[in-house]
Amino acid sequence: MVNFEFCSPTKVFFGKDQEKKVGEIIKGYGASKVLLHYGGGSIKRNGLYDTVVKSLKEAGIDFVELGGVKPNPRVSLVREGIALGRREGVDFILAVGGGSTIDSAKAIGVGIPYDGDVWDFYDKSAVPAVTLPVATILTIAAAGSEMSPSSVITNEDGWFKRGLDIDLIRPVFSILNPALTCSVPAYQTACGAADIMAHIMERYFTNVDDVDYSDRLCEASMQSVIRALPKVLKNTDDYAARAEIMWTGCVAHNDLLSCGRIGDWASHMIEHEVSGIYDIAHGAGLAICFPAWMKYVYKHNITRFVQFAVRVWGVDNDFYDPEATALKGIERLENFLRYDCALPTRFSDVGIGDDRFEEMADKATANDTKKIGNFVKLSKQDIVNIYSLAK
Amino acid sequence: MVNFEFCSPTKVFFGKDQEKKVGEIIKGYGASKVLLHYGGGSIKRNGLYDTVVKSLKEAGIDFVELGGVKPNPRVSLVREGIALGRREGVDFILAVGGGSTIDSAKAIGVGIPYDGDVWDFYDKSAVPAVTLPVATILTIAAAGSEMSPSSVITNEDGWFKRGLDIDLIRPVFSILNPALTCSVPAYQTACGAADIMAHIMERYFTNVDDVDYSDRLCEASMQSVIRALPKVLKNTDDYAARAEIMWTGCVAHNDLLSCGRIGDWASHMIEHEVSGIYDIAHGAGLAICFPAWMKYVYKHNITRFVQFAVRVWGVDNDFYDPEATALKGIERLENFLRYDCALPTRFSDVGIGDDRFEEMADKATANDTKKIGNFVKLSKQDIVNIYSLAK
Repeated sequence: MVNFEFCSPTKVFFGKDQEKKVGEIIKGYGASKVLLHYGGGSIKRNGLYDTVVKSLKEAGIDFVELGGVKPNPRVSLVREGIALGRREGVDFILAVGGGSTIDSAKAIGVGIPYDGDVWDFYDKSAVPAVTLPVATILTIAAAGSEMSPSSVITNEDGWFKRGLDIDLIRPVFSILNPALTCSVPAYQTACGAADIMAHIMERYFTNVDDVDYSDRLCEASMQSVIRALPKVLKNTDDYAARAEIMWTGCVAHNDLLSCGRIGDWASHMIEHEVSGIYDIAHGAGLAICFPAWMKYVYKHNITRFVQFAVRVWGVDNDFYDPEATALKGIERLENFLRYDCALPTRFSDVGIGDDRFEEMADKATANDTKKIGNFVKLSKQDIVNIYSLAK
Repeated sequence: MVNFEFCSPTKVFFGKDQEKKVGEIIKGYGASKVLLHYGGGSIKRNGLYDTVVKSLKEAGIDFVELGGVKPNPRVSLVREGIALGRREGVDFILAVGGGSTIDSAKAIGVGIPYDGDVWDFYDKSAVPAVTLPVATILTIAAAGSEMSPSSVITNEDGWFKRGLDIDLIRPVFSILNPALTCSVPAYQTACGAADIMAHIMERYFTNVDDVDYSDRLCEASMQSVIRALPKVLKNTDDYAARAEIMWTGCVAHNDLLSCGRIGDWASHMIEHEVSGIYDIAHGAGLAICFPAWMKYVYKHNITRFVQFAVRVWGVDNDFYDPEATALKGIERLENFLRYDCALPTRFSDVGIGDDRFEEMADKATANDTKKIGNFVKLSKQDIVNIYSLAK
């Protein structure tokens, strides 16, 4: 186990009807003007928008709003939010939506008090020192942004998708009502589950020894998703199963599962280039890229992949042939994504050819070392090979 | 899953040498005068006291000190700490020690700004509204007080042992260096492990349905202790195994494992009366009381005890005889406590007779309903019966 610091102060309000008290809760933070940030019209169609506005008004909270967040949230809208927030004297941001809306809100939160351009924080030319408080009402279990120190934003100027990771941007509170996710269609639900699984697997595949407890926490988290997801896809109104996925998604990315470990994160970077260019759902991109990454790197530590196969997937351990056991685990993951989640697991499933593999691999490795990943350090050529395994 | 709120803001600094920066960390909280609170002389003998004092001095932190905390910490010393803290203008409390020292520090923290007597918070005649910030350097993995909202204090006037549970008293930060626990003797280490197991089991045995994810987190936590404890008892300097136990002990009681569940907690109350009167180690008392509680209540939900047996202890599931499977799990727990931990599992092991069972059961049920526990509601007679099963 390596030394670590861990602080996850986001207050979680979990369960039925919790969103109805959002105004009262925000009042407790002494906010004078709130920026209500959301995505498309879904929260207006399903009544959540009205519930939130009613609660804010009843609590006497003044607010302005900015909708229009798209999947793979754009820096242009973030800049618009920053300008609006400054103009209106906003001192609190409430994100109502999924990971894209929350990530966008976090970017606005650090952007408003900053003199320079907010993209500085994403291209690592500056580090934010302060933020406005950001709170969330989550509408899809996926990104884990509701409790995480992360925000991922896409810059349309070159279609770069880049992340900011700093404890400063953890939300002050998050409201998680599983019932709000019941209207999420099957495909998006499955993409969310793939994202949650990926957040856990990025942490699970580590070279750090003696991390038994967090191994087990990761395994517990994966098993929860594997059990609950098919229930939800069979009955989208299954509150109990929605609750399991929503809470797992939250814990999966609040960094508890990272404690004492060094995660890999190559697959996320490999995928970011795909959804950055092609604008497919991040979860779908992960369902394509993660199994390919595994097939490319498993020989680096077959024992870890055997553990993954046996403990997570219940694969019978073939003690005569560890490699066969390891490969069964990867196969089980791919089958889960393809058949239980009904997600694409190959580029050909979503009509993406190999013509931009080189370009994407180039962008993924555009850093000083020209390599990514910790479990195995991957070069541009490695990434092209991984993309090719997912053709 | 039931609705819940969860907020665990304690910042954890985990790993080797973290205690050396305690002065710098406290400085970040703007403390002007610290009360350094500790137990017996062990931190002076092993050099930790000197390390802490050096760090405080180097950071220019003024401090006063109060040692002498005993196991089952006494309200008399808490009152002494409150008087000292007021006299000296203390505005920050640093507990260096185990659960008793931390619990005592938490009591002093809420006592200093309170007009009445601190025991009011423990006999529930008042609720604390403010506290001084409390931080900890943990020296034994057991109580989980380093991240928990709990404090348990014993009132010598009647030997009542009572708890305070409120988010307000969660430490602001905790330093966890597993190396500091390497000097803890085998018996105390085992008592700590029993306490950690008990914290998990209190949460595990619930009547709430659809808590699959937190079930699995509980199971992961128990398995981590079961795996690591024998390693530590074999080699008390096993840093890696000490680290697993220390981190598990922390997570086991920070309430993550309670999310969406209603825990039982009868066994803790049943044990508190034992260690309140006989002054044996809390963990030893739990090793005696918890298996007896299980034998008394398992028929309430045999399936849950089957799950405990199969998932936690790897018992082969006898599908023809669920009760036999359930009982095997309880047996495995008792054997773990008795043989792996070398702890007493019967009152006769520690020379306690049955002469005060009635008195202890009376005190345990001294509340409005005259019952305790949530998994099964227990009367005074039930508790006498449980004590008798542990004779």
